[in-house]
Amino acid sequence: MMSRQMLATDEWDDAAIGALLDRAAQLKAGRDPQPRALEGRVLANLFFNPSLRTRASFEVAMLRHGGACIALEPGKGVWGFETRPGVVMDGDAAEHLVDAARVLGRYGDLLGVRAFPSAPTWEEARRDEVLKIVAREAGVGVINLESARRHPCQGLADALTIREQLGTPRGKRFVLAWCWHPRALPTAVPVSAALAASREGMEVVIARPRGFDLDPEDMRAIEAMAGRNGGSVSTTDDLNAAMEGAEIVYAKSWGSLRRYGDAESEARGRAGLRHWRIDEDLMARTAGGQGRLMHCLPLRRNVIVTDGVLDGPWSVVTDQAENRLHVQRALLLDLLGDA
Amino acid sequence: MMSRQMLATDEWDDAAIGALLDRAAQLKAGRDPQPRALEGRVLANLFFNPSLRTRASFEVAMLRHGGACIALEPGKGVWGFETRPGVVMDGDAAEHLVDAARVLGRYGDLLGVRAFPSAPTWEEARRDEVLKIVAREAGVGVINLESARRHPCQGLADALTIREQLGTPRGKRFVLAWCWHPRALPTAVPVSAALAASREGMEVVIARPRGFDLDPEDMRAIEAMAGRNGGSVSTTDDLNAAMEGAEIVYAKSWGSLRRYGDAESEARGRAGLRHWRIDEDLMARTAGGQGRLMHCLPLRRNVIVTDGVLDGPWSVVTDQAENRLHVQRALLLDLLGDA
Amino acid sequence: MMSRQMLATDEWDDAAIGALLDRAAQLKAGRDPQPRALEGRVLANLFFNPSLRTRASFEVAMLRHGGACIALEPGKGVWGFETRPGVVMDGDAAEHLVDAARVLGRYGDLLGVRAFPSAPTWEEARRDEVLKIVAREAGVGVINLESARRHPCQGLADALTIREQLGTPRGKRFVLAWCWHPRALPTAVPVSAALAASREGMEVVIARPRGFDLDPEDMRAIEAMAGRNGGSVSTTDDLNAAMEGAEIVYAKSWGSLRRYGDAESEARGRAGLRHWRIDEDLMARTAGGQGRLMHCLPLRRNVIVTDGVLDGPWSVVTDQAENRLHVQRALLLDLLGDA
Repeated sequence: MMSRQMLATDEWDDAAIGALLDRAAQLKAGRDPQPRALEGRVLANLFFNPSLRTRASFEVAMLRHGGACIALEPGKGVWGFETRPGVVMDGDAAEHLVDAARVLGRYGDLLGVRAFPSAPTWEEARRDEVLKIVAREAGVGVINLESARRHPCQGLADALTIREQLGTPRGKRFVLAWCWHPRALPTAVPVSAALAASREGMEVVIARPRGFDLDPEDMRAIEAMAGRNGGSVSTTDDLNAAMEGAEIVYAKSWGSLRRYGDAESEARGRAGLRHWRIDEDLMARTAGGQGRLMHCLPLRRNVIVTDGVLDGPWSVVTDQAENRLHVQRALLLDLLGDA
Repeated sequence: MMSRQMLATDEWDDAAIGALLDRAAQLKAGRDPQPRALEGRVLANLFFNPSLRTRASFEVAMLRHGGACIALEPGKGVWGFETRPGVVMDGDAAEHLVDAARVLGRYGDLLGVRAFPSAPTWEEARRDEVLKIVAREAGVGVINLESARRHPCQGLADALTIREQLGTPRGKRFVLAWCWHPRALPTAVPVSAALAASREGMEVVIARPRGFDLDPEDMRAIEAMAGRNGGSVSTTDDLNAAMEGAEIVYAKSWGSLRRYGDAESEARGRAGLRHWRIDEDLMARTAGGQGRLMHCLPLRRNVIVTDGVLDGPWSVVTDQAENRLHVQRALLLDLLGDA
Repeated sequence: MMSRQMLATDEWDDAAIGALLDRAAQLKAGRDPQPRALEGRVLANLFFNPSLRTRASFEVAMLRHGGACIALEPGKGVWGFETRPGVVMDGDAAEHLVDAARVLGRYGDLLGVRAFPSAPTWEEARRDEVLKIVAREAGVGVINLESARRHPCQGLADALTIREQLGTPRGKRFVLAWCWHPRALPTAVPVSAALAASREGMEVVIARPRGFDLDPEDMRAIEAMAGRNGGSVSTTDDLNAAMEGAEIVYAKSWGSLRRYGDAESEARGRAGLRHWRIDEDLMARTAGGQGRLMHCLPLRRNVIVTDGVLDGPWSVVTDQAENRLHVQRALLLDLLGDA
C-alpha cells in the first residue's frame, strides 16, 4: 500500500490542501499537538543539494511528534549516484539511484528528496528525473524537498503565511518580484509561490525583466490554478507599476531559462538589472504602504531586499520560514500519522 | 561490566547466531516489536569510511526501538585520529584514537566502528588495529561496521536472506562469484558471506580468477565453519561450471591481496577479466534456472551484474539490504535491550 | 519570554553554578534520571568549527532525557554566513547570520553556537560577534559551545571534576600549565578552566612562558572571581616551581595573543619551548606525587602530555570528558526542562 506523495502541490486538490493548511494553523497555535503521533517513524532524506531550513525544519517537525529524520548526502560521506538507465557503470558512480531508492524505501517510512536542476540543458533538467526515480522505486511515500520544477513545502508555507497576513486573500494583489542576484537560481520557488497565491484566488502579477519568463508549462499550471479559483495571472516588466496596491510582495531571483547552463550568457542577460531590488521606496507603493514582504530565504541582504525593508514593518520572512515547520508537521501527520 | 561485542560472527557460537537470526525474523514479521526497548540508549558510530546502508540501517534500527545513533566521521567535521602507539603527535592528527575511544565509551552505550583497510601493506591492514583499539579501550560493547577482515552485520543479513530464500540451506550450492570492478575492493564482505553460508552447512564454491584468493587465515576460518556444520568449501576458476545447480549466487568483487596497495599491478592483474560479470546466461545455469542473486550493495550495474538479472526474477538484493535492518535490530536488542 | 543563556559561566552567580554542579553530580550518580523531561525538545547547534566531544556529549545529553539535537555546519552542506551588518551581499555568502539565527530560533527550543576566533585581529576576534549576533537575534536561549573568549560547558565539567577529585578544593593549588603545540590554539579553555578553579577558591598558578599571557580583561575576570571566593591567582614562567605541591595540573596549549593571526611570528615565539610538556618527572613534584592531570581533549600525546602520565595514575582526562555529558544534562534541564 503506497502512501500518498507530495511531489507538487498542484497534484493535490483544493480540499486536501485546505485541510492541510488548517491543520498546520492548529498545530502552530498549539492545539492538538500529538507529541507521540510519529513515534518510531522515520523520514529518510536524500540531499543532493545543501539545505538549512528544509533540513532543520523537517528534523524538528518529526521530533515534535516523536519521530526522527535520517539524512543522506550523496557525494558527502555517501558516494554519488548514477541516474541514467542502462548505463555500464564503470565510471565514478558506485551505485545507481534505482537501487538506493529501493533500499531506503525499506528503511524509512517516507523519503524526502532534494535535487536542484543539474542536467546540462533545461529540456533535460525540467524532467526532474532524480525525483521521479525515487518516487517510482521507493515503494513508500516521497516528499519533494525542492526539485527543478517544484518546492511544494515552500509553497505550502507561503500559502499559510498569506492566509495569516491577509485573512481573506481572494482578489488581493500578489506581486512575484524578480530580483537581481549574482548567480542564476532555480525557478521552483517562484513557480510554487505563484501556484500558492493562485490557489488563494489572488491577483497574481509576475514582474520580471524580459527574458526571465518561467517555464511555459509551469505558467500554464499557474494560470489554470488561478482560473479554477477566481484569481488572475499577468506578467509585466514594470516593477514600479506592479507594486501599486500590492498586499504581498514576494521577492525572488531566478535564472533565465533560455540561458540555462550558460553562465556567461546569463551574466550578460542580467547586466544592468541590479536595480531590480526591493527597497523602502518600492514598499511605499504597496497597499497603504503596508504591503508584506515575503522571501523563501536564504536571502542576500541589500542585493535582493534592503536592510531597511527586512528589519522594518513589512517583512514577514521569519514567520514564513517558521511556517515551513508547521505545514510540514501537518503533512507528515497526514502522510504517516494516521496509517 | 562489559557488554558483549560483535566484531566477527565467527566469534559467536551457532546457538547465539541462531537465536539472533530467529529474533530478526520475528522482528521483520512485526511480532514483539518492542518500540521502547532502547529508549534513551545511544549507539555512537565512528565512520572512518563512507556508508549508506550501514549508517541508515543502524539509525533506523535504533529509532524503531526508541533509541538513537550519533555519528562521528573522523576527518569530516572531526579531526583525523592517530592510531599508532607511542608516537610523538606533532604531525597532522590532533587526537589519538585511544583517547577518543575512551571518551566515546563514556557517552554511548555501544560503539560502532567502520574502518576499511588503509595501511600500506596487507600484513599491517589485516590486523584491524583501528577496530581493536576501540574494542580494547571503549569500556562498552563494540560493533564492527566493516573492517579489513570482517563485516559481521552483512554476514548476518546474508544468513537471514539465505534462510528466507531456501528454507533449508543445508547441502545446497552457494557460489561466491568474483566479479570485475574498476578498483580493488576489500575482502570483508566475501569472507563474511562465505562464513554465513558455511555456517548454514551449504556447499560453498568460491569462483575467482587465479591470483584473487582470500586471506589464508580467513579461508581456514571458512573451512572450519563448514567442517563443523556439515558443509564444504571449494575453489575454482571456472565460473560457468560453478553456476551449475547453484541455489544462491553471491556476486562480489574484491582486490588481489598479493597486489594489495599497488593500483598499477592490480589493474594489470584484472585486465581481461571484465567477462567475470553475472548476466542472464549465467543465471540460466543455476538450479532450475531460478537461483537467487545476492549482493551486499552498492553495486555497479552492468559491470558486476546486468540490469536484466537485477531487475529480473533472480535478484533478492533489496530484501538482503532490508535484512540489515532486522538483524541489527535483533543485535542491538541483544547487546543493549536486556541490560 | 527569553530563556536564560549560557554564554559564560562568569555571567552566572555562585549559587546558580553550585546548584547546576550539584544536579550534574546527581545525574551522574543515576539519581532522578528524568528520562522524558526533554521529550520533543530540540537543541539546534550551529558548528562553525569541528567538534567531537561537544557535539557527541550534547547529542547524548538531549537523548538521555528524550530530546534531540539538530546540527548545522555552515560551509558544510549549509552555505557560509555573512556576519557584518549593512553589507551588500554580492560576494560568496548567501545568507546573513541575523536571518539564520531568527529562523533557527523558531525551530529549536534552544540554540548552541561554536565559533572559534577567526577575525584577522585579536581586537576584533575577542568581541565574539558570531555568538553575540545569535544571542541577540535568536529569541530563545543560547549556549556557547566555545567562542573566542569562553567555553563555559568545559569550565563546568572542569569544576565538577575538581570537586570529584578533591572534595574540598578551597586553598589547594591548581596549576594551569601552558604546553607547546605546533599551532596557536584559542584561549577560551584556559580562561574557562581558571575561572572554574578560581570560583572554587583555589590557589591558581598560571605557568606560561613570557609572551603567552591571557587577555587582560579575562585575567581581571579570573582575579575578581578568585577574590570573591577566597582564592588567589599568580603567574610564573617557572613551571618546575609551579608544580610543587599542585593538587591539579591543567595542561593546555594556547597561542600568543600579541602574535595573534601571524603564524610565522607565533612559530618564532614558541621555538625552543617544546620542553613545556607534562611528563612523569613534573608530576612527581605535585602534592605527594599524586596530583591530578586534567586536559580538555583533544590532546597530542607526547607533545602536550606524555603517554606515561596519560596512562598512569595521574590522568583524569576521561572522567573530565565524561563530565561534559553530566554538566550539560544539568544545564539543559535547567534551561528547558522546567519550562
